[in-house]
Amino acid sequence: MLKEQYMELALSLAEGVRGQTSPNPPVGAVVVKDGRVIGMGAHLKAGTAHAEVHALRAAGKEAEGADLYVTLEPCSHHGKTPPCADLVVSTGIKRVFIATMDPNPQVSGKGVQKLEAAGIKVEIGVCQERADRLLKPFFHFIQHQTPFVTMKTAITADGKTAAYTGHSRWITDEPAREDVHCLRHEHDAILVGVNTVLQDNPLLTTRLPHGGKHPIRVILDTHLRTPITAKVIENKQADTIIICGCEASVEKEEALTAAGADVIRLETADIHIPLLLKKLGEEGIMTLLVEGGGEVNASFFQEKAFQQMIIYMAPKLIGGKMAPTPFGGEGFPTMDESIPLTFDKVEMIGQDIKITASRKEG
Amino acid sequence: MLKEQYMELALSLAEGVRGQTSPNPPVGAVVVKDGRVIGMGAHLKAGTAHAEVHALRAAGKEAEGADLYVTLEPCSHHGKTPPCADLVVSTGIKRVFIATMDPNPQVSGKGVQKLEAAGIKVEIGVCQERADRLLKPFFHFIQHQTPFVTMKTAITADGKTAAYTGHSRWITDEPAREDVHCLRHEHDAILVGVNTVLQDNPLLTTRLPHGGKHPIRVILDTHLRTPITAKVIENKQADTIIICGCEASVEKEEALTAAGADVIRLETADIHIPLLLKKLGEEGIMTLLVEGGGEVNASFFQEKAFQQMIIYMAPKLIGGKMAPTPFGGEGFPTMDESIPLTFDKVEMIGQDIKITASRKEG
Repeated sequence: MLKEQYMELALSLAEGVRGQTSPNPPVGAVVVKDGRVIGMGAHLKAGTAHAEVHALRAAGKEAEGADLYVTLEPCSHHGKTPPCADLVVSTGIKRVFIATMDPNPQVSGKGVQKLEAAGIKVEIGVCQERADRLLKPFFHFIQHQTPFVTMKTAITADGKTAAYTGHSRWITDEPAREDVHCLRHEHDAILVGVNTVLQDNPLLTTRLPHGGKHPIRVILDTHLRTPITAKVIENKQADTIIICGCEASVEKEEALTAAGADVIRLETADIHIPLLLKKLGEEGIMTLLVEGGGEVNASFFQEKAFQQMIIYMAPKLIGGKMAPTPFGGEGFPTMDESIPLTFDKVEMIGQDIKITASRKEG
Repeated sequence: MLKEQYMELALSLAEGVRGQTSPNPPVGAVVVKDGRVIGMGAHLKAGTAHAEVHALRAAGKEAEGADLYVTLEPCSHHGKTPPCADLVVSTGIKRVFIATMDPNPQVSGKGVQKLEAAGIKVEIGVCQERADRLLKPFFHFIQHQTPFVTMKTAITADGKTAAYTGHSRWITDEPAREDVHCLRHEHDAILVGVNTVLQDNPLLTTRLPHGGKHPIRVILDTHLRTPITAKVIENKQADTIIICGCEASVEKEEALTAAGADVIRLETADIHIPLLLKKLGEEGIMTLLVEGGGEVNASFFQEKAFQQMIIYMAPKLIGGKMAPTPFGGEGFPTMDESIPLTFDKVEMIGQDIKITASRKEG
């Protein structure tokens, strides 16, 4: 096999654990000797063994003289686990192929230095594009200490999120709605506005036929109007964080806290999105899925406070001048002022179209 | 080569003349003998030779004993040209492969009968799906005597056709805008509302780097407000048909007619879309491209008077509760009442997405 094929395998391992390693990145590793895979592994959960450890453990003594493929530069520092670079050296690995480097400027390159100092041949950049795409949220979090924000919306083919009456069940078909649960599984947290809680009383959990990780629920609720009987409070499958303004009732805060929710009171009367994201970053939330209605979406939109947008488009036309669309608010006056995106991926999910787009920086 | 490959070649010939044969269908033919293509041709223009004639003429005397691949059943009746089935028989063709049958119930099967009566072996249905897709507008026209209607719209990724200010230049990028000119070339007629004429004063011609056929321009203008100085009147590259209600000024009609436009006065005060389509069918318009704004689109939408929709989506977000979307009007109150589509094709045109959808009948 080619080195790219071994790295693709390591990347597949890493992609399989996407969403379950925060605040660590998903990483995969493969050990190869004499053209045979003798070990593989992925980092499964923060605080537990890194990908290299699993893969080298599987290889055992055979690792001596073998090649290691790893999707991210091996760490060189003592964290919750000992440095992987030391382990790689001690097992007698001969060559190391790395897809992409550690983005943290304090440690980037140090793992490679350790390896090379021990006489190991290192090649960097094998399948880097795919690795970088997978690690985008991690890179963003390291750089900004705020979550990588994905806005999700479902529209009809004429761009509406509901009929003029507000009716919206359902826009997309079963497979697309299941795909949204996969998105929830992959994200550390999911965010909605209090109006969604009051109108739909959703659970906001991940419901997939073979299970999934539940995201932390984040409710934007300036005046603490969330009832303590709401499903997001009563259901304990996931934590719930309620964000309120500085003028919200202290009594209501105490009631919600007693009911098991975490209330984060901002310093401002209104919810300022950049401040909110700073707080969520402090909570270790690396990825945030915004499943808001038009007004919550508009507040992220106006601040350009998102990195990715996922649009499900259903093959139906609902019409209506007054039917709601993904972004409320005023919007921009001319096309030149619009927020530019890049369409990264367009695919069919059942009968619906799924569009994954990134916001262009700058 | 396989029979499917020869038929694909015939279909490619037919697709190459899409839009230039109305009210006849685009048809291609290939003559094959001893594994070599010895003739090919397509119907190029109504009133001129059919595809079989061109292909058999190219084959000459060699046609004797050869196979003929033709995308539509050869005609059996005397129209502007003699019946192709007779020609096929007289040239000594041994086998005929047909992609799809003539939809006209009065003649369907008669071509095949003639061929079989002369001892020719006939196989029907080779690559039928692709042929049927190509001939959809023709089949529709034969069945309903009204044009096959395609609605075209360009939206931002958040479903808007303009900013809240009305600013919309440009939503899509150059390649998508050029693709619209290809659509114009392929259609017999293009339709807009008088407001588009008054606001944008467009030419509505086909402007492509290597030329293209201009569609007939159809303007919906209930009260005949189109100025005789409008580009669609002054420019003579294409005919212009103005549709007005029965109460429109006779003087204005005379002025427009004198300026070279055709005015069709409906029997009703308002423009009733089904009646309009009947009139356009009588004019021999087989395919109609609706490039309307929200209100013209809404009138076709409300009557479900369209067969196809083409959506260009640009990678940008403009936002705005009041920004216009593809369909004005009231719209439907619930998702269950929405107009169902099928997404036939999703492709990238430059940086934009092009979605081709059909309205589900019934």
